[in-house]
Amino acid sequence: MKAVKKLLDNVDDAVTDSLAGFAQAHADLVEVNWRPLYVRRRGGTPPGQVAVVSGGGSGHEPLHAGFVGEGMLAAAIPGEMFTSPSAPQIAAAYRSAEAGAGVLAIVKNYTGDILNFGLAAELVELDDIAVEQVVVDDDVAVEDSTFTAGRRGVAGTLLVEKIAGAAAARGDSLAEVTACARHVLDNVASMGVALAAGTVPAVGRPGFDLGPDEIEIGVGIHGEPGRRREPHAPATEITRALLEPICADLALEPGERVLLLVNGMGGTPLLEQYLVYGRARAMLEGRGVTVERSLVGNYVTSLDMHGVSLTVLRLDDALIDLWDAPTHTPALR
Amino acid sequence: MKAVKKLLDNVDDAVTDSLAGFAQAHADLVEVNWRPLYVRRRGGTPPGQVAVVSGGGSGHEPLHAGFVGEGMLAAAIPGEMFTSPSAPQIAAAYRSAEAGAGVLAIVKNYTGDILNFGLAAELVELDDIAVEQVVVDDDVAVEDSTFTAGRRGVAGTLLVEKIAGAAAARGDSLAEVTACARHVLDNVASMGVALAAGTVPAVGRPGFDLGPDEIEIGVGIHGEPGRRREPHAPATEITRALLEPICADLALEPGERVLLLVNGMGGTPLLEQYLVYGRARAMLEGRGVTVERSLVGNYVTSLDMHGVSLTVLRLDDALIDLWDAPTHTPALR
Repeated sequence: MKAVKKLLDNVDDAVTDSLAGFAQAHADLVEVNWRPLYVRRRGGTPPGQVAVVSGGGSGHEPLHAGFVGEGMLAAAIPGEMFTSPSAPQIAAAYRSAEAGAGVLAIVKNYTGDILNFGLAAELVELDDIAVEQVVVDDDVAVEDSTFTAGRRGVAGTLLVEKIAGAAAARGDSLAEVTACARHVLDNVASMGVALAAGTVPAVGRPGFDLGPDEIEIGVGIHGEPGRRREPHAPATEITRALLEPICADLALEPGERVLLLVNGMGGTPLLEQYLVYGRARAMLEGRGVTVERSLVGNYVTSLDMHGVSLTVLRLDDALIDLWDAPTHTPALR
Repeated sequence: MKAVKKLLDNVDDAVTDSLAGFAQAHADLVEVNWRPLYVRRRGGTPPGQVAVVSGGGSGHEPLHAGFVGEGMLAAAIPGEMFTSPSAPQIAAAYRSAEAGAGVLAIVKNYTGDILNFGLAAELVELDDIAVEQVVVDDDVAVEDSTFTAGRRGVAGTLLVEKIAGAAAARGDSLAEVTACARHVLDNVASMGVALAAGTVPAVGRPGFDLGPDEIEIGVGIHGEPGRRREPHAPATEITRALLEPICADLALEPGERVLLLVNGMGGTPLLEQYLVYGRARAMLEGRGVTVERSLVGNYVTSLDMHGVSLTVLRLDDALIDLWDAPTHTPALR
């Protein structure tokens, strides 16, 4: 496959070079600890507040570091490209973010992340830091995948981070913030499509091969295979192929209210993302479901993959209040 | 060149299909008039406030419709893909947005836009609507271009829209808002690079051809040729090739303060954009220039072009106050 050019200096330093720019651009909101590497809310977690923390491999920007700040994450731990951060690295972030009320770790369901976040929780137990952990597995495309036992964690992660962060900001206890995150997890489902693969800088070529008229329905955010490859189709058909499994998984009923997230994978024009949003919304409304809140944009990307994912979250008044609460982060406010 | 897949239904309806989704996703902020087509701030311009209006060909999203809302644009007029909106369409938006204090039109310097925005101003003069117009020509890459006599208007447009919109929101007169916009124009300069071309849906193939190890320095936002094609280089070298002509054009001196905008062209991962931001900032600081404000992201795109542009705005206290003023739009807040 054709080589893909990148705006980088040394590929080995891409993650830290980029984070250095990120830290300077958002010095009013975040601060970076370099050894070990994590991003923390500027000034640390307010005393007595639960520290909501997340992390994982890089290449999905703005996830997670872009969501550090008031009303969302207390810290984010970036790994190397598509690679879990290490347990000592995660543990250092826990210690730094903890402010007397414990840590809620939001972990996407990938084998490396599950292992290292689990080990990190054990490491800080010795310091008497209480850690709860929730595992995001919102991708309804496939059970088990390249890097995953069970479902993958994808763009629903952003919603868990936002809502748990809002619960922490209003002063909920660790048990309450954790329950809030679990409530989101019980009511969220996602599925994505790729029209063209993203390119990991160190590889320099697209991560998988799609024919000139072929798309991958149910693709993962590391380019993992989805449910099937099929011929490229109009946006309405593709949207339906993503939305129907989501609605089935959530067992959505007429009269229910939802948040609809259309997430660009990094290489998709906003014009296409809004078009898909309109189609998905019309289909939900056709089922008697009301779209009460919306988000459209590049939030959980796969480098420069061309594609989108749909995420639907079943809403209730409590979730709406938390979604609407103030957020001040580099990527969401 | 290889065909590029798109998430669309009918290519002829792509702009309106996408706007329909946009309008639904942001119904709290904007409203769309379909015939003729324009996007207006929800509920219209507050009485007595200058209506700051902009528009131009589609394909650069979120520009301009994404910047309609409190503290920025009163209305935006989208043309077809890379095509100016018509004079009657623009005039209808002026009439709809005008709230007793006149209209400031912010026009990017392309031949079609200059013609049609000029005609629109004449059309509404008959209705006793005062229209002032400023022309954005911030691209220092080339004099005269494919669709342009003189310099092209590129990502600096966003800064003019934000700052003029803030002046209007605080109650400045039409003459004052216009002077504010001109002050930005006198102190802003931009230049871009393409690593790979974007694809207009109706064409289905990249708009220009770059060799596998070739980049276009000084590219326009419609893929117009820049200063030169050269071999692909490390990000630091590319950043320098963009920043030096900008600094020369602005005659930046040590001790001055600037806003630095790194703008993704639509297909560029955020990771690369932040990396370029860090490099550009270091170079500015190396010249004794202080980066006081920053913006990094996809704001003035060229569909799915892979590349970035740099924009530098010389700041003073008055501009900083206007930049920091509240903004509530779909794409910037």
